[in-house]
Amino acid sequence: MHGLFYPERIAVFGVSDSPLNLARNIVTNLDRFGFRGEVFPIGREGESLNGRKIFRSIEEVGPVPDIAVMLVPARFVPEAIESCGRKGVKYVVIQSGGFTEFAEASRDLESRVKEIARKWNIRFVGPNCISIINMENSLILPFVPLYPNETRRGPVSVAAQSGGIMLEMMQGLNFEGIGFNKLISMGNKLDLNENDYLEYLISDQETKVVGLYLENISDGRRLMELAAATDKPIVVLKSNTSPGGSRVAQFHTTALAGDDQVASAGMAQAGIHRAHNLQEMLDDLKILSIAPMRGGRLGILSRSGGHAVLLADAAHRYGFELAAFSEGFFDRIRREVRAGVISMTNPLDMGDIFNIAFYADIVESALQEEGVDGVVISHGAVSKNENEATREVFRRAGELSRQYGKPVVAVTAPRREEYFPTRELGVPVFPEADLAIRAMSLSRARNMMKERKIARAGRWPALNKSGRGQSRAASPAEAYGFLKSCGLPAARFAVVNGPAEGLKAAEEIGYPVVLKIGDPGVIHKTEAGGVRIGIRTPSALKRAFREMSRASGAREFLIQETAPAGTEVILGGRQDREFGPVILFGLGGIFVEVLRDVALRVAPVSAEEAGDMIRGIRGRALLEGFRGSPPCDTDSLAKYIEKLSLLLADHPEISNIDINPLILYGKGGGGIIVDAKMEITEKA
Amino acid sequence: MHGLFYPERIAVFGVSDSPLNLARNIVTNLDRFGFRGEVFPIGREGESLNGRKIFRSIEEVGPVPDIAVMLVPARFVPEAIESCGRKGVKYVVIQSGGFTEFAEASRDLESRVKEIARKWNIRFVGPNCISIINMENSLILPFVPLYPNETRRGPVSVAAQSGGIMLEMMQGLNFEGIGFNKLISMGNKLDLNENDYLEYLISDQETKVVGLYLENISDGRRLMELAAATDKPIVVLKSNTSPGGSRVAQFHTTALAGDDQVASAGMAQAGIHRAHNLQEMLDDLKILSIAPMRGGRLGILSRSGGHAVLLADAAHRYGFELAAFSEGFFDRIRREVRAGVISMTNPLDMGDIFNIAFYADIVESALQEEGVDGVVISHGAVSKNENEATREVFRRAGELSRQYGKPVVAVTAPRREEYFPTRELGVPVFPEADLAIRAMSLSRARNMMKERKIARAGRWPALNKSGRGQSRAASPAEAYGFLKSCGLPAARFAVVNGPAEGLKAAEEIGYPVVLKIGDPGVIHKTEAGGVRIGIRTPSALKRAFREMSRASGAREFLIQETAPAGTEVILGGRQDREFGPVILFGLGGIFVEVLRDVALRVAPVSAEEAGDMIRGIRGRALLEGFRGSPPCDTDSLAKYIEKLSLLLADHPEISNIDINPLILYGKGGGGIIVDAKMEITEKA
Repeated sequence: MHGLFYPERIAVFGVSDSPLNLARNIVTNLDRFGFRGEVFPIGREGESLNGRKIFRSIEEVGPVPDIAVMLVPARFVPEAIESCGRKGVKYVVIQSGGFTEFAEASRDLESRVKEIARKWNIRFVGPNCISIINMENSLILPFVPLYPNETRRGPVSVAAQSGGIMLEMMQGLNFEGIGFNKLISMGNKLDLNENDYLEYLISDQETKVVGLYLENISDGRRLMELAAATDKPIVVLKSNTSPGGSRVAQFHTTALAGDDQVASAGMAQAGIHRAHNLQEMLDDLKILSIAPMRGGRLGILSRSGGHAVLLADAAHRYGFELAAFSEGFFDRIRREVRAGVISMTNPLDMGDIFNIAFYADIVESALQEEGVDGVVISHGAVSKNENEATREVFRRAGELSRQYGKPVVAVTAPRREEYFPTRELGVPVFPEADLAIRAMSLSRARNMMKERKIARAGRWPALNKSGRGQSRAASPAEAYGFLKSCGLPAARFAVVNGPAEGLKAAEEIGYPVVLKIGDPGVIHKTEAGGVRIGIRTPSALKRAFREMSRASGAREFLIQETAPAGTEVILGGRQDREFGPVILFGLGGIFVEVLRDVALRVAPVSAEEAGDMIRGIRGRALLEGFRGSPPCDTDSLAKYIEKLSLLLADHPEISNIDINPLILYGKGGGGIIVDAKMEITEKA
Repeated sequence: MHGLFYPERIAVFGVSDSPLNLARNIVTNLDRFGFRGEVFPIGREGESLNGRKIFRSIEEVGPVPDIAVMLVPARFVPEAIESCGRKGVKYVVIQSGGFTEFAEASRDLESRVKEIARKWNIRFVGPNCISIINMENSLILPFVPLYPNETRRGPVSVAAQSGGIMLEMMQGLNFEGIGFNKLISMGNKLDLNENDYLEYLISDQETKVVGLYLENISDGRRLMELAAATDKPIVVLKSNTSPGGSRVAQFHTTALAGDDQVASAGMAQAGIHRAHNLQEMLDDLKILSIAPMRGGRLGILSRSGGHAVLLADAAHRYGFELAAFSEGFFDRIRREVRAGVISMTNPLDMGDIFNIAFYADIVESALQEEGVDGVVISHGAVSKNENEATREVFRRAGELSRQYGKPVVAVTAPRREEYFPTRELGVPVFPEADLAIRAMSLSRARNMMKERKIARAGRWPALNKSGRGQSRAASPAEAYGFLKSCGLPAARFAVVNGPAEGLKAAEEIGYPVVLKIGDPGVIHKTEAGGVRIGIRTPSALKRAFREMSRASGAREFLIQETAPAGTEVILGGRQDREFGPVILFGLGGIFVEVLRDVALRVAPVSAEEAGDMIRGIRGRALLEGFRGSPPCDTDSLAKYIEKLSLLLADHPEISNIDINPLILYGKGGGGIIVDAKMEITEKA
């Protein structure tokens, strides 16, 4: 994709010299920013723009453009792409709106665009986007007028599924002194999608941190693979989280694991930082652009006692320690204190130090302390004649942070842009104690993050994105067979058609037995009176058969062994349209049904990760031995979770599975699956 | 306190004409803002300032000042107050630092100041503060230079226990176009405290909304009473929430209800809005200054599709409905749409409307819709040449909000101060979708808030703020006696000193019985092997006595009736230093010990509020009848909670109580208290 971001020659479709024309802004932006390649405006009416000839068609252009940018009405896009194909253009940026984002009727048009592009081997951005920016070569392609003082070259690249969000990130990164490297407005993602851009940005030397704004996820598994394989920090803001509405919650797992929770789980597994709003996204990009927090000891410097208290509260909330400053540190400060009214503590209240320039020296002294992993400087209420000195403190603090390899962040009154360093990267500035400490906490978490290993199944699980296809309930025999096939401890059972076979089976399995309806259609057997437990004799079994047949009309039955009492847990899984197979674990009974206390991962997972799931539920104490009861066999449980996750990954036709309960025994005792429901959906 | 905020004559202590003098800023501020009363600078060296004579002492001043402001070294404060007293001054503002906030050794100095003030009947602000501001009469008393363009008269008054926070609130309220009426920096609260200021601000006609920043709470009960009795919204940011450290968690309730949770509970009971950081505080003050959200139907207007999605997500998260716009509404919009590429939905994507002035018309149309309770307008990426038009939209939106009596808020790119209306109250502006919708949600919650009734005990519970005094464990007899005295269903029991008395008591109570150690010192009886349950015969009882005496050396025992099985709950309480008696309820066993699933209130509570507590725990389904078990007698439970809360309020000497468990039965069945521990602390 290098050719898209580093073109030598650019064709711009849809240009005229009318002042209302939008495509002319593209040409003007390139000129204003001093793009050094050739630019060929194209428009039906010809004429000229900024002293540059407007070609009537791409055929008229002499050399072959590397990329073509289009801002023509949607219905003219296929023809324009066709002409690009004939000319030999390899990348197209379709800014035009009026596709499926507006009306479903445009689906045909989109198909046509895709087809033509495929024919000519053209890859394209959009449609319905404000296109791309590359600060390395002044490639400024949006149709909105942009100005050099609105941009700043920096280490962060962002791909956004919304032009408005892309512009806001641009403004924010510029304004806060971080800067950006490449910006992409992805539009409808008809061809290139976030994974394509991400793959490129990961390979891009100039990009140090990647931000993505996504309204849907094109292929969650590929996203995870890409993120897990790189050391570059990736921040994702995923919106569109309101639930889709009327989903039938016939399976626990479907009800317990909403799409958005799956997205959260998948991103966390891959080491992606999920931001929950634009402020968090910007804050995350800011903090990940500077030196990392390598430990948990903060030095807090504050001009106001109130802000010091708020920072100390936040430090405690996020699990930081307040570093113990050395005597040497305090000695250096005492020299500058006027009235002597200052306590030598951390947080350090600098309120009595009136020489603001000295603040930077204090920052340096704090960074020199061995026991300090990062510094927060709060400089709340600044009067206007202190702006210059404050800016200089922030600028020097940024230099010192780079020099000492430790993070420094500033907290200052919200929305006072005059404090922000305007010409170079200073410290990240936060309007609020809580946000500053939260950012430091992210930095530490990032630094402590283990290598991500995305477990792999035997075959790469296919996504069934349409969710279409015939679904059917598996019979108990089929479900239990699947489970046994992957080594899961399903209870011993036999399928029988009536009392005669039943008595024989019960003899083999051994009393007491359980009798269940075996017809695949009956999902909620207990509620339907289709389960009888504790049958101790043949005559009791015969009586149970009689009553169950009469009440339910069932023709197929299950005789099942009776599992000893133990701790109930549930396992489940389903296929997610964006991430594929998903696995879920929780404690049985009230914990799931009342408290929804479950752990969730994108499958497959390793036994180690399954262990994290087990330790991740709130009620974990119950498995670890609560009130003197012996601890459960969580090692076996972790293996069961791993095995089920592999089963789901290898069998995308299993659209839902619900193991409820699995009875778990003490260390070394394993467990027994007492009931399981399964739904099979063959791909349409 | 009217005299403090509306003085005619002001004496300012500590003034000199040295450029380094800080007190001169007070005089200059008053002059700069055009204060119309008389100002008398006082300083040992005399001379003059701004052409005004500096008096050498207050005696030299002719008329009696209404208030005196002091910025002299701490050690001179007593003498200065004494001179004010002799002169007849009624209010003093002590700005000087160097009191106990700096060194414990200054406690004597503080006592002296208090004593002298009391002698002369003087009330004072501070010490260690930057004093007060009243925009109504240009009373600008801080020692930091302030300028008229940094201030704006408005409906919000703030009292802050930090000068830095007061200044930041001042800047924020000014900057965001809301303005402020009275500002108070409370300092060390040696005399006047937050409740005194709150009481005054509630009575103050010009103050419509009150904000408090508190690092400690002087008297939580009075704060609750004041807040519950007024309709004025009160927002409190309470910091200093990190736990104090080494508290022995011998009682569940002590461990389960930290000081900060008590503060949260108490504020919520009184209808106070607790903000968690400065941004929330400012946001809350902003939204509570405009027309309230009277329902749950939002109209969302957005220039960018991405922001529309983020707003819709947030609306869903906060439980709002997206209003159904009428056809008439859409008709009015269609007239302005250029390319026709716009979906007629809510959120309305205004991206294709290029005439920004029309946005205000859309806001008006939305406000006219009967199905719309409030409007959010997002105007994310604004290019520089649109600033003027944007400001005008926000200004008109503010007017329209007042005209239609519905709230309008704006979301716009963070930290772009040029968008803020500078001369008059426009709409509140939020940098983030989530924050805007959160604010709307607060507005709705406020509007739906029921009248707060703070339950009262027989006598007004006294605070034991020192926490000092001798503590002792109550004997079981004493504890059970207390519980029975207030009508709580303690199990039948008898205190006995050995087997002979024990057998007699068991006969009366009826087998099976429970045998317990009765010595008051043994708190964790079960762990100490001091409880035997299910004793069915006299011989078994004798054996149990023998074993228990041998193992524990106990000399006092309890024979107790055996309660039938039921649902275990716990009740507890303790005395909080800031709020007095506190009551706590939770489900027994794992729910409390593993999940810490508890409800907490400042006592006393009514049975109705106790019902809210019961419905407020996560595991409430267990009480309502889970998996076919009959519902518990929650009516009786609510009455028990009420009674215990009254007991705690009437007996401040009960410093801790732990009822664990109370066994609860089905509807009408009541419950039985099976075990209770109690600690008594007599005031020092």
